Amino acid sequence: MPPTHSIGTPVREIETPALIVDLDVMEENLALMAKRLEGTGVSLRAHAKTHKSPWLASKQVALGAVGVCCQKVSEAEVMVEGGIENVLVSSEVTAVPKLRRLAALARHANLMVVVDHPQGVAMLAESVTAAGAEIGVLVDVDVGQGRCGVAPGEAAVELARRVEAARGLELRGIQAYQGKAQHVDGFAERRGVYADAVARMRETVDAFEAAGLPLEIRSGGGTGSWRWDAESGVLNELQAGSYLFMDSHYRSIGGEDSDVYDDFQPSLFVLTTVVSAPGPGHVVMDAGHKALSSDSGLAPCLELEGAVHARASDEHGVLELSPASRRPEIGETLLFQPSHCDPTINLYDVYHGVRGGMEKGVLEAVIPVAARGCVW
Amino acid sequence: MPPTHSIGTPVREIETPALIVDLDVMEENLALMAKRLEGTGVSLRAHAKTHKSPWLASKQVALGAVGVCCQKVSEAEVMVEGGIENVLVSSEVTAVPKLRRLAALARHANLMVVVDHPQGVAMLAESVTAAGAEIGVLVDVDVGQGRCGVAPGEAAVELARRVEAARGLELRGIQAYQGKAQHVDGFAERRGVYADAVARMRETVDAFEAAGLPLEIRSGGGTGSWRWDAESGVLNELQAGSYLFMDSHYRSIGGEDSDVYDDFQPSLFVLTTVVSAPGPGHVVMDAGHKALSSDSGLAPCLELEGAVHARASDEHGVLELSPASRRPEIGETLLFQPSHCDPTINLYDVYHGVRGGMEKGVLEAVIPVAARGCVW
Repeated sequence: MPPTHSIGTPVREIETPALIVDLDVMEENLALMAKRLEGTGVSLRAHAKTHKSPWLASKQVALGAVGVCCQKVSEAEVMVEGGIENVLVSSEVTAVPKLRRLAALARHANLMVVVDHPQGVAMLAESVTAAGAEIGVLVDVDVGQGRCGVAPGEAAVELARRVEAARGLELRGIQAYQGKAQHVDGFAERRGVYADAVARMRETVDAFEAAGLPLEIRSGGGTGSWRWDAESGVLNELQAGSYLFMDSHYRSIGGEDSDVYDDFQPSLFVLTTVVSAPGPGHVVMDAGHKALSSDSGLAPCLELEGAVHARASDEHGVLELSPASRRPEIGETLLFQPSHCDPTINLYDVYHGVRGGMEKGVLEAVIPVAARGCVW
Repeated sequence: MPPTHSIGTPVREIETPALIVDLDVMEENLALMAKRLEGTGVSLRAHAKTHKSPWLASKQVALGAVGVCCQKVSEAEVMVEGGIENVLVSSEVTAVPKLRRLAALARHANLMVVVDHPQGVAMLAESVTAAGAEIGVLVDVDVGQGRCGVAPGEAAVELARRVEAARGLELRGIQAYQGKAQHVDGFAERRGVYADAVARMRETVDAFEAAGLPLEIRSGGGTGSWRWDAESGVLNELQAGSYLFMDSHYRSIGGEDSDVYDDFQPSLFVLTTVVSAPGPGHVVMDAGHKALSSDSGLAPCLELEGAVHARASDEHGVLELSPASRRPEIGETLLFQPSHCDPTINLYDVYHGVRGGMEKGVLEAVIPVAARGCVW
């Protein structure tokens, strides 16, 4: 386990690399999302894949979220154990041992899962009835991502009928997540991709209604599309996760009136230490691939103007300095913004929750990343 | 913690995603390295950053390794706690709390650390003397990587003199690691880069000898250069880690008589499950960025000839099928070879050690990745 720090430790004295949450900013993001969804008819189903923390999930629920979604059965287990009672497993579950765990968990929570194939429906029904349980089911519809999901419209209706006919399964609606639309650069371009997705959702909703199928829940969307999710008239649950923390990728994709996406402010950081400064042109810090995910590019340094995070290896990052950059001392701390919050958080056992900012702030809470590593 | 499986569980029934070690192949790699180093005058100082397991380190020591090296103080703590007595911290340590931990640990093990700056020497000496401890020191020399390390030759000698003069520090030699040379594609090209590094090592060794400085240990090299490390006449410790497992990156860089690097065989895999097969062209499996690191590219699938691991998101991977590819069933397991073993291992809490191969083999050992997440 990571080093223990006393509550009240100054932020720059936390041992590095460390995952730091600015609690003031995070709470603003929490409150802003809750406020913006008021009166829209859309509820937040916060995506716990991002934070992996029942403690943070409970804050979302306290501000009005209906519950959470999880990508993995193991994440759902951690959320239920942590007191979250309404959980959607937003990925297909197709292995018998996992289905058994899901069925067992359904006896202890208001649990739902998605399906996209008749075989998946049959396997789920078998496990659930064997456990003497019941589970809610959403039909997962591919509205343009091209990953999982059944085709919109009649194909979705056909699968829904199988769910309705299966013992132990309660058809509750659809999941319609367009992951690609979350990350399109530029507000107008993103809205175009999103409009396509909404058309497919609408087609499916109409087909469900024409078939007289239950459609209590229409779950989807995310941080990159939340304004349109709320205005879509189709979704009634928003699966946003990253809004809590933001990351340099989300921040960089253009918003309506600016060249960054600024609905929410960055609240998540990785604190590092300079371990080597061998020449005039670069310094080396103590965070590499094992401390900052690089699948969305190398994390930007928030200090040292003109310095570029040029290379990373497993335990080191190299910052190339410009002639104008201040040259940091050996042992000095440097703050980075994760380029992609979800896989970066998954590298850490705890968040260090800091109150009062990244310069003068102090440690207020050590928050376990309770579902870290829960990939199964 | 991950699901518990009984010893004897068939490999394909282990819950996915799971990190699997083929124990037969791993033991061949272990034995082969030990055999090849016999009589060369070069000892293995196995890099524990790769496996993060005292259990695996103890196997290396049993076969002749002098000890291990670690990139982080926290890794060294785990190794010492696990009974490994000879540990080199192969990265500079420049933060006071870490230096205190290092000094405390030095009272319980044969511990060494590298330095590359006078300020680092002074900070280390202060912490070590305050703890009433002693620690071995290697001067870290930049032999071409351009990351950490002092310049070869006289600059290294000057720093070594400071180490010699400092209380609590015992100068034991140099570290000369050329990380870039490990990964040059093509045997001849790699040997060229390596020859440059050897020249800088030689310059430093000559300068140390001329200055009458102790040079008991000359540590460096790795899996990508081990044959030349052993023949260099300069190094007497080899810091190889990946040889135990190999990965698709190391395997792909050309060897002398083949188009892959085939000194060691792949023994590390990630087992996944097909969760969705929505159309004819692709299937989706349950391992994304949180289960397979992508810093060296997406991990290749070892089954389904003609299928390409085309995209990954946090919890999913998309395999594009060729017209000739067999189409896997929903729920079927698929085996992947990590593209980069170190950061992939760091995502998991345990290895599942399997005897008898990846088809018919059974679980023999659940091996903790004891230093997983030890980045601080």
